[in-house]
Amino acid sequence: MLKVGVVGATGYTGEELVKILASHPKVKLTFLTAKIDKDEIISNIYPSLKGKCDLVCKSSVTDDLFSKAELVFLALPHKVSMDFVPKFLKSKAKIIDLSADYRLPSDIYETWYGMEHKDKENIKNAVYGLPELYKDKIKSAELIANPGCYPTSIILGLAPIIKGNLNDISETIIADSKSGVTGAGRKADISISFAEVNESLKAYKINEHQHMPEIIQEISKLSNYKLELIFVPHLIPMNRGILSTIYVKLNDSITNDKLTDIYKKFYANSKFIRIMPKGVFPQVKEVSRTNICSIGIKVDEKKKIAVIISCIDNLLKGAAGQAVQNMNIMYGFEEDEGLL
Amino acid sequence: MLKVGVVGATGYTGEELVKILASHPKVKLTFLTAKIDKDEIISNIYPSLKGKCDLVCKSSVTDDLFSKAELVFLALPHKVSMDFVPKFLKSKAKIIDLSADYRLPSDIYETWYGMEHKDKENIKNAVYGLPELYKDKIKSAELIANPGCYPTSIILGLAPIIKGNLNDISETIIADSKSGVTGAGRKADISISFAEVNESLKAYKINEHQHMPEIIQEISKLSNYKLELIFVPHLIPMNRGILSTIYVKLNDSITNDKLTDIYKKFYANSKFIRIMPKGVFPQVKEVSRTNICSIGIKVDEKKKIAVIISCIDNLLKGAAGQAVQNMNIMYGFEEDEGLL
Amino acid sequence: MLKVGVVGATGYTGEELVKILASHPKVKLTFLTAKIDKDEIISNIYPSLKGKCDLVCKSSVTDDLFSKAELVFLALPHKVSMDFVPKFLKSKAKIIDLSADYRLPSDIYETWYGMEHKDKENIKNAVYGLPELYKDKIKSAELIANPGCYPTSIILGLAPIIKGNLNDISETIIADSKSGVTGAGRKADISISFAEVNESLKAYKINEHQHMPEIIQEISKLSNYKLELIFVPHLIPMNRGILSTIYVKLNDSITNDKLTDIYKKFYANSKFIRIMPKGVFPQVKEVSRTNICSIGIKVDEKKKIAVIISCIDNLLKGAAGQAVQNMNIMYGFEEDEGLL
Amino acid sequence: MLKVGVVGATGYTGEELVKILASHPKVKLTFLTAKIDKDEIISNIYPSLKGKCDLVCKSSVTDDLFSKAELVFLALPHKVSMDFVPKFLKSKAKIIDLSADYRLPSDIYETWYGMEHKDKENIKNAVYGLPELYKDKIKSAELIANPGCYPTSIILGLAPIIKGNLNDISETIIADSKSGVTGAGRKADISISFAEVNESLKAYKINEHQHMPEIIQEISKLSNYKLELIFVPHLIPMNRGILSTIYVKLNDSITNDKLTDIYKKFYANSKFIRIMPKGVFPQVKEVSRTNICSIGIKVDEKKKIAVIISCIDNLLKGAAGQAVQNMNIMYGFEEDEGLL
Repeated sequence: MLKVGVVGATGYTGEELVKILASHPKVKLTFLTAKIDKDEIISNIYPSLKGKCDLVCKSSVTDDLFSKAELVFLALPHKVSMDFVPKFLKSKAKIIDLSADYRLPSDIYETWYGMEHKDKENIKNAVYGLPELYKDKIKSAELIANPGCYPTSIILGLAPIIKGNLNDISETIIADSKSGVTGAGRKADISISFAEVNESLKAYKINEHQHMPEIIQEISKLSNYKLELIFVPHLIPMNRGILSTIYVKLNDSITNDKLTDIYKKFYANSKFIRIMPKGVFPQVKEVSRTNICSIGIKVDEKKKIAVIISCIDNLLKGAAGQAVQNMNIMYGFEEDEGLL
Repeated sequence: MLKVGVVGATGYTGEELVKILASHPKVKLTFLTAKIDKDEIISNIYPSLKGKCDLVCKSSVTDDLFSKAELVFLALPHKVSMDFVPKFLKSKAKIIDLSADYRLPSDIYETWYGMEHKDKENIKNAVYGLPELYKDKIKSAELIANPGCYPTSIILGLAPIIKGNLNDISETIIADSKSGVTGAGRKADISISFAEVNESLKAYKINEHQHMPEIIQEISKLSNYKLELIFVPHLIPMNRGILSTIYVKLNDSITNDKLTDIYKKFYANSKFIRIMPKGVFPQVKEVSRTNICSIGIKVDEKKKIAVIISCIDNLLKGAAGQAVQNMNIMYGFEEDEGLL
Repeated sequence: MLKVGVVGATGYTGEELVKILASHPKVKLTFLTAKIDKDEIISNIYPSLKGKCDLVCKSSVTDDLFSKAELVFLALPHKVSMDFVPKFLKSKAKIIDLSADYRLPSDIYETWYGMEHKDKENIKNAVYGLPELYKDKIKSAELIANPGCYPTSIILGLAPIIKGNLNDISETIIADSKSGVTGAGRKADISISFAEVNESLKAYKINEHQHMPEIIQEISKLSNYKLELIFVPHLIPMNRGILSTIYVKLNDSITNDKLTDIYKKFYANSKFIRIMPKGVFPQVKEVSRTNICSIGIKVDEKKKIAVIISCIDNLLKGAAGQAVQNMNIMYGFEEDEGLL
Repeated sequence: MLKVGVVGATGYTGEELVKILASHPKVKLTFLTAKIDKDEIISNIYPSLKGKCDLVCKSSVTDDLFSKAELVFLALPHKVSMDFVPKFLKSKAKIIDLSADYRLPSDIYETWYGMEHKDKENIKNAVYGLPELYKDKIKSAELIANPGCYPTSIILGLAPIIKGNLNDISETIIADSKSGVTGAGRKADISISFAEVNESLKAYKINEHQHMPEIIQEISKLSNYKLELIFVPHLIPMNRGILSTIYVKLNDSITNDKLTDIYKKFYANSKFIRIMPKGVFPQVKEVSRTNICSIGIKVDEKKKIAVIISCIDNLLKGAAGQAVQNMNIMYGFEEDEGLL
C-alpha cells in the first residue's frame, strides 16, 4: 500500500481527495492536515466520510509529517504550496501540488500572481500533470503541477485541433467558460454567498484571470507558436462543473465528421475523454461527480470556425480526480483505479 | 413630503427599503448611511436603483443627520440599533426600528441576546409594529419595534385561532418554519455560501432561535395565557420567502369551512392578508416581492388539529414592506401606498 | 454472480439502480427495460454510465425476460408494478418492487390509490423491505415491497421512540417533511418545471398524501396500537434529499442524552443509520448520494416533546439504495456491498 | 385611457404583461385570453395579481374581442400569432406581437420555422420594435414585431460598434448567450424540469437557433453589409435573465475608454440602456425585474477584439417590458411609464 498524505484536507478539493483516497484499493492515508482551529477527526467535519475515513485531521503541518508519506497531495491555495514543497521533497516524498505554484516559469508567475516566487528551483522539475498529453513524463515525476480547472477543460478541448495543425494560428482563440461556485474555493466571502449568486450570472476577470498564462503556455507548447487567447470566465449558480465553449478559426474548411474523427483518434487511448457523436453536446450533469472530460464539436464549414464544447467536473477532472489519475500513472496502478 | 432617512441602507432589507421609499409618492429620502468604507452613491452599490435613487450613502452616522429626517428607519442588526435610537428620539425624529432591540422587555432580551440592554428606558415606549393587530397604537407611536420575519408569519397565522379561543391552550403549538437565505442577512459567512446551502436543507437553532420569545410574548398577549411553543426554523436553498407550517390543537372540532370563515372575518379589513380558499395553499412565489401574507388552512376534524400555512416575503412583509406599512399608518397615508 | 434485471431503468430511481448494480461485485445485469420509444443502449440515455453499463435497454417487457434474471427490480410507478409481479414470480424470479403496490392491504390500497388491486394474492406474501426493522423476514422473502421515501425517513426516525414505549400514544404524531424534486419522478409536468419550483416552496397533499397509510401502518405495527399522524409534505427547490422534522409527545420527560442513547442502542447494528451527537443535526448534503439515514434529536424536557430530524437521500435510502440493501440481505452478501 | 387586451395571458410573458398593464396609469385592460380549459379569473391563476387585476381570462378568442381594444398584445408562441393578426388588424386594433411571426421576410421565416407563413401580406407593414433603434417608425406603426430576447441583448450590444464602422466586417461575430429557463416558456417538458436543469448547464441549438436570422438581419441592416455570426445559446439554472458575451473583431485598435464613450453617446437618449464604467460588468441580478439593458465593455487593444457583455431580463426588456415601451412610444406616453 502506498502511503499518502493530504495537506489542505478540508477545502472542497481536499474533501474530494480524501473521499477518493479513502476508498482507493492501492493506497493508505497516513495523515491529513488543514487550516483548522484544532485537531479534529475528519469525519466530524465531513460526516459523509464516517466509516470511510476517521483519521484525525491535524491543524498544522508538523515536521514529523514530512517523512510520513511516500506521496503528498497539496490541496492548498496558490502562494501557500511553495512553502511546503521544498520540505517534502527534501524528505524524499513525491508531491502532487494542486495549486498554481509550479505550473509557470517564475517570471510569469510573479506577473500574474503578484508576489515573488520562493521556490524557483523546483519549478523546473515540475511536470505539468495533464495525463492525456504528458503521461510519460508523469510516470517518472517527483513533483506534479496539477492543472487548473479552467485550463484542463480548455486545453483538452483544443489539443487535437492544435496538434493536427488545423487551427489558423494567426487568429485569436476565444474561450468562454462557465463555472460552478465551488471553483472559488470554500471560504467566507459575500460575493459567493447564496443570495448573491443564485438567480444571477456574471462574467469576471475578463481576460485577466490568473489561469490565462497557464492556458496560453500549454496550447502554445502544442503548436510551437505563441497562440493568442481571449478568456472570459463566468460564475454560474450551480455547485460543480465547468463548461467551456471554445471558438477556433480553422486553416481550412473541414467537415464536422472529419474533425470528430480526429478527436476520437487523438484520444483513442484516453479513458477519461468522451467525444460526443455529431449533434450531441455535453451537459454538466453528465460529467458531474466523474473524472470524465466530455467534448462536443460543431463546425461551421462556411465560416471555417469550429465550436468546441468541453465539459468537466471542476473538483474531479479539474482538481482531485486528475490528481489521483496522476498518482495512478506515477505508481503504475490502473489509470482509473479508484476513479470509477 | 415626509422627510425620511435610512440607517443601514446596504443590507438586503436596507436595499428593499430604499427601493420602496424612493418610489413612494409621499416621502422624500433625505439621507442614507451604511457600514461601508467610504461615502458612495447608493446606485453605484445597487445599480438597480439608478435613476430611482442616486443619493450618497454615508459611511457613518454623523450628528447632523439626527435632525435631517422626520422619520428614520433603522435597518440594523440587533445590538446596534439601541445605540442610535436615543439620539434620534432626542432630535424629535420618529423611528421605525427593524432590529429586535425594542421588541422585548429588557430582561428577556438580555437572556436571549446575551448582552445588557443599553436603552431600557425607551423599550417601554416602543409599539410592536404588526399593523393587522395594533393599528391604533401604531398611529400615535414615536418608536416602532418592527416585527421579525419568522414572528410575522407565525403570529399572523395564529391570531384568529387564538383570539377566537379556539386553541387548546394547554397544548403546545408547533411552528415549523422554512426560510430563504436572505433571512440571514448580507454577510461573509461560509455557512451561507452558495455551495453550502445549494442542494441541501437543514434545521437550525431548534427551539433556541432568538425569535422564540417574541413569538411567545405576542401570541400569549392575544390569549391572555402563556402559550407554549416549539419552533423549528429551517434554511432552504432559495433567496427570499418564509413559509411557516403551524400545528394547533383545538379545543373542539371545527370544520375547515368554519375556521376559514373565522380567518376571513378576522382579516376582513386587512389589505395585505390573503386567506386561500379550501384546498388551496400558499406558495412562496405567490407572495414573493409583495407585502402579502397568504394563509391556507387545513383542519383534521377527527384529530382536532388545525394546520395553518402562513407565507410571506421575508424582506417585505417580514421587514421592509411592513416597516413602510407602519409608516403609512403613522402618517395617515393609504396603508398600501408605495406597496403595490 | 447473481443475475438481475431492472424494469423501469430510465427514471431517476432506475438510473441510480443501474449505476449501483453495474458496479456491484456480486451481480450481473442481464436485462434492462423502460417505457421508451425504441430499444436503446442505456449509456446513450445516461452518458455517465458509459463504460460501466452499455446494455441495451428494451422498450418493452417481452416474455423471454421473465426467466432471464434470478432477481428483478421493478422501478415502476404504482399501479404498474402489479401487472408484472405475478409474471415474474411465476418464472421463479424473486422481486424487489419499488412501487407502492405491495405495501398495503388491498382495501387500504384501493382507498388511497383509487383503483382495484389486480394482484391481491401476492400482497400477503410481500415483505416490507425496511432492513433496520425486518432483516430476518427479508432474508427469506420472494417479494419485497420496498418502502416509500417519506415513510423510510419517518419510520426510521420514530422506531426507537415507539418500540421503547416512550411515545404518548394518545397524542397525534406530526411529521413535517421536506423533499427534493426528484421525489416526483422523471416526467413532463409544469408543476415540477424549473421556473415553477425554483425560488419557491410549498406544502402539498396536506394530510392526504398516499404515503400516509403506509407510515401509519408501519408505526402502528411497532406500537401495537393505531397511532395517529398528521403528515405534511413540502416541495423544496433541490434535486435530491428528504428531511423530516417529527414532533412526538412523550409519556414522561426524558433527557436529550438518554433519548439519544436509546436511539444509539436501537440502531447499534444498523450500518446505515447515523445518530448525531447532542446539538448537531443532519443536513441533506451529508447524506446526499449515500444510503445513510442520519437522525438528530432535540428533547424539550419541560414540554415533554421530542423533535426528531431524520434525513435521507430520497433516491438511495429512500429507493434504489435500500432496494440493493434488501438484495444484499436476501442473498447473504455484505449488507453494504456496492453501497459505499 | 387606452383600451388594451392581451392574448396569451397565462404564459410567463403574459403574466408580466398583465402585471405591468394593470398598474399602468394610461391604460385599461379590456380583455384577457389564454389557452386554458375554461374561463377563469386571472388572479386565481396568478394570486399575485389579486387586487391588481381580477379580470376573467377567456379560454378562447371570440369574435367580439376583435373590436374590444384599441391595442392588442399577442403573447403567443410563434406560428400561432399569424392566425390572429389579420383579424385584429381588420377590426382596426393595433397590435404588438411578441412572437417571431412578423420579424422576418416570409421566405427566411419559412426556412427557419419550418412552415408556410399564412399572412405574408402583413409582414411588410410590421415594424421591428426595438425602440433604441427605431423609435420614429414605432410611433406610427400599426403592427409591431416585438424583438426576441436573445436578439434584444445581442443587437443592443452590437449597435454602436457596427453603426460606428468599428467592426471588421470580414470577421465573424461571436455571440455566446446564457439564458434563464423562463426563456423556454411555460410548458410541460422534461428537458426543463427542475431536476434536469438544476446543477447542470448546456449549450443547445448551436448555430441553429431560430433567433439567428433575426439577429443577422438586424445587425446587417445596421452595417449595410451581410455580417456573419456564430451564435451559441446556453441554458442556465436560473429563472430569468440573459447575459450575452459578444466577441467582435475591430477594424483598428481603440482604447477601452474611447469605445465606452462611443456607447455612451450612442445611447445618450436611451433611458433603458446602462453603460457600465470601465472594469465593471453587468450581472443578471442588476437588471432582473427591470426593463434595463446593461452593457459592459472590455477591449483587448493588442488583439483588436472587443468583448461586449450585454445583460437583460428576458421577460421584460426581452419581451413584456419592451412591448410596453413600444406601446408608450406609439401612444405618446412617457417612454418609461409603468416600467419603473
